[in-house]
Amino acid sequence: MTEVSELTVGVLGGTGPQGKGLALRWAMAGQRVILGSRSAERAEQAASEVSSLAGAEVTGGDNAVCAASADVVLVAVPWDGHAELLTSLREQLAGKIVIDCVNPLGFDKQGPYALPVAEGSAAQQAFDLLPDARVTAAFHHVSAVHLADLSVTDMDTDVLVLGEDREAVDIVRALADRIPGVRGIYGGRLRNAHQVEAFTANLIAINRRYKTNSGVRITNV
Amino acid sequence: MTEVSELTVGVLGGTGPQGKGLALRWAMAGQRVILGSRSAERAEQAASEVSSLAGAEVTGGDNAVCAASADVVLVAVPWDGHAELLTSLREQLAGKIVIDCVNPLGFDKQGPYALPVAEGSAAQQAFDLLPDARVTAAFHHVSAVHLADLSVTDMDTDVLVLGEDREAVDIVRALADRIPGVRGIYGGRLRNAHQVEAFTANLIAINRRYKTNSGVRITNV
Repeated sequence: MTEVSELTVGVLGGTGPQGKGLALRWAMAGQRVILGSRSAERAEQAASEVSSLAGAEVTGGDNAVCAASADVVLVAVPWDGHAELLTSLREQLAGKIVIDCVNPLGFDKQGPYALPVAEGSAAQQAFDLLPDARVTAAFHHVSAVHLADLSVTDMDTDVLVLGEDREAVDIVRALADRIPGVRGIYGGRLRNAHQVEAFTANLIAINRRYKTNSGVRITNV
Repeated sequence: MTEVSELTVGVLGGTGPQGKGLALRWAMAGQRVILGSRSAERAEQAASEVSSLAGAEVTGGDNAVCAASADVVLVAVPWDGHAELLTSLREQLAGKIVIDCVNPLGFDKQGPYALPVAEGSAAQQAFDLLPDARVTAAFHHVSAVHLADLSVTDMDTDVLVLGEDREAVDIVRALADRIPGVRGIYGGRLRNAHQVEAFTANLIAINRRYKTNSGVRITNV
């Protein structure tokens, strides 16, 4: 397998809490990271913040530069702009491992709920829009609060990695393993991504009821 | 709250592995249990098996007798007959706590996948069909293999309990807690039941890949 520590990870939506938090943890683990955003300037600003927190250099650029410069690309953008962004980056993402961590959720006064997705899930939408990429789904349930809080040195959560391409799944699992207290495990095919994305609504309901930031462990694995 | 140990638990579909396994563990914990099946004879046969394994008396009857005799009713029937059975038991289930643990899944050569459900989920179908019952959803992810294997003395899994009726949810959580190594925790509203049911497809995929019987723990709760 590819030596994972040699890979450059690009984070699309790198100014949001999930993308920035994962970037921080990967940078701290010694991974080369480039943050992407619609605005190169905001990406560079976030990269400079992450660099000083991580004590390691992280660069930034617009989403196209980010996608073109990275070996593995995390998609951490809001569900709203998901299809449009991926369509625009089809060329830059060709041949690359794409990790979709987007949770299509809605909120109303009763709390969070899963939005219907025509393709089945955000990950399947990515798969359809990026026929030349190696699309996986992972990192849906990792608490952004814990990622950003450097006093949390053990995330105590598994990351389910879904995909059709076994080598790509294994590389993403290894990237998960680089974050302290995170274990990447295979979680099924992309057609079973919907419920993993939607399960984030249950975790948010749990967080509200128990006033916590929950995670998920798979037992007996 | 109601003293949970005083309640009689009825198990519809009590001759199947999930229903029989939960019945066994509840009977071992001292809970009064009645198994239901379409055939009273098969229910009595299963009850006699469970009784001798548990060292405690478990009774059996047809599904209508089971529903009428119990305070809390677990629905553990195949998805195929779910709507028809619940429709036929509307009267017997009025006012009772119903626990739906049904996972609407399909299987093909690529493995398990979630079936679409018009109402959103099996639990929401139960809610729609049983307007006078207190419908909850729980026990989707508990390994039937481990339930039946009495050498397993710690199930090492959480049970997510979903529902709109907080007292009913708390009673079901307490019923979960009676099984060794099981913790019942609130898992959200019924509109978020689909992904909990469907997640069983991911656990089956995990079981196949890792040759295990997996469970789920929610961390930081």
